[in-house]
Amino acid sequence: MSRIAYVNGRYLPHGAASVAIDDRGYQFADGVYEVAPVQGGRIIDLAPHFDRLGASLAALRIDDPVPAPALELITRETLARNRVADGIVYLQVTRGVAPRDHGFPKASIKPALVVTAKSIGWPTDPAQDLGVGIVTTPDIRWGRCDVKAIGLLPNVLAKQKAREAGAFEAWFVRSDGMVSEGASTNAWIVDRDGRLVTRPLGPEILPGITRATVLELARTAGIEVIERPFGVDELLAAREAFLTSTTALARAVVAVDGRPIANGYPGEITRQLRGLCIAHYHDTVSA
Amino acid sequence: MSRIAYVNGRYLPHGAASVAIDDRGYQFADGVYEVAPVQGGRIIDLAPHFDRLGASLAALRIDDPVPAPALELITRETLARNRVADGIVYLQVTRGVAPRDHGFPKASIKPALVVTAKSIGWPTDPAQDLGVGIVTTPDIRWGRCDVKAIGLLPNVLAKQKAREAGAFEAWFVRSDGMVSEGASTNAWIVDRDGRLVTRPLGPEILPGITRATVLELARTAGIEVIERPFGVDELLAAREAFLTSTTALARAVVAVDGRPIANGYPGEITRQLRGLCIAHYHDTVSA
Repeated sequence: MSRIAYVNGRYLPHGAASVAIDDRGYQFADGVYEVAPVQGGRIIDLAPHFDRLGASLAALRIDDPVPAPALELITRETLARNRVADGIVYLQVTRGVAPRDHGFPKASIKPALVVTAKSIGWPTDPAQDLGVGIVTTPDIRWGRCDVKAIGLLPNVLAKQKAREAGAFEAWFVRSDGMVSEGASTNAWIVDRDGRLVTRPLGPEILPGITRATVLELARTAGIEVIERPFGVDELLAAREAFLTSTTALARAVVAVDGRPIANGYPGEITRQLRGLCIAHYHDTVSA
Repeated sequence: MSRIAYVNGRYLPHGAASVAIDDRGYQFADGVYEVAPVQGGRIIDLAPHFDRLGASLAALRIDDPVPAPALELITRETLARNRVADGIVYLQVTRGVAPRDHGFPKASIKPALVVTAKSIGWPTDPAQDLGVGIVTTPDIRWGRCDVKAIGLLPNVLAKQKAREAGAFEAWFVRSDGMVSEGASTNAWIVDRDGRLVTRPLGPEILPGITRATVLELARTAGIEVIERPFGVDELLAAREAFLTSTTALARAVVAVDGRPIANGYPGEITRQLRGLCIAHYHDTVSA
């Protein structure tokens, strides 16, 4: 079955779907996006994903492309037309189409909206229970990483560096030696005192939906949690490390720059939290 | 006359010209661009613009979209089809079209190439001899501003801030208090000792073609030049300040955050260098 994409009011064959060369997303990276998980035909955590999209748009002063109820309808229709039961839905909003000029267009323009969907086999694939390696890389990104903007070039370069090192992900390290987050994941450790540690929200990291879920699941499970930055030295000496994202859920990090974390196998708290994440997705689907 | 755009091998009506939604320029800002000036039907400084495009592509490991002679032909043909005698030509190259995934596509893909042109009335418009105001804004851009990448969102936000303050441009100020450059210009002062000062090349600034031209013109004219960073305090106390870009050439900055520079009028060295830039363009056309 060929894929279908929603583009500015029309459902089109994905391969033929296009946007104007003067779309400000193409010329300036003047736009934002979301990736939401779908399982059993249900969109998981739809509300926080839509809320974050709204926050990203507000930060850039881009109008909502369509009212929220219409956005939900378009999202569901795109999933239906692509027969996605398990997979992801991708939403991208840019400031719209205007003659190239850095400042916002003087005339009122309509934001551009693209919605696509695809099937992926997750998150219960047992292969994903295995740990992954990561590399560290200097955090050269801009100062508003809390906005889920499409200007992802530093993330692209970091992910490629990871791949060429045979790793799954790259974690950014700031000039103060502290880890911010991954190219497309949030970063976590279990410290030597057994506490779960992740960086607090701020302009250096994306407010991950799975990050928020794991914080809540951990607290409910009685795991001690502390939101504070951690450095590479502490990471290398950690009891456990893991990453979170919409598609990875919580996934063990067992090597950093080729050096094993603890015994080199997924840790106990990581496995517990991964199980709780899978249950959270499952509960959402069953609800 | 309707404008014509070159897009991946075809010349199309500009308003109908489009790129795939899976173009990595649209989803990741994974691409670069150039803007070259055209006067009297001649492209000014074509070689340095093409050289810089090559450097940007190499930095991101994006292949040349077409061989250099073909790129020049396409550029000239786009100008001809748009009957641009005085204006600019815009070239954008992205890594190409591939299913969305942060790392470089595993399969070899063809880079995407868009070339557009438009007429503008410059640079001898006397209005441009007048000075402009600028605002300062924190430099929150990424760490590779020497690459002319399309991820321009911080520049967009800075330019918009300038516009809303009634200013022409925003100059970025780094956390150490030093000016890096403008949202789309390089930054210069004449210091209290009468020396021309601009920041040396490095990852914090774009290697401007007009910047290089002005350095050479100044040295030839016997103006003492020093490449070093300068701060906002020194800027406010400067004898003169100006900005350079392909479309602004050298243009006086007469106010910073609403405070006048010197007597609030374009300075002598600025006017001299602006004249030399105009002559440089003219000489190129006449050559």
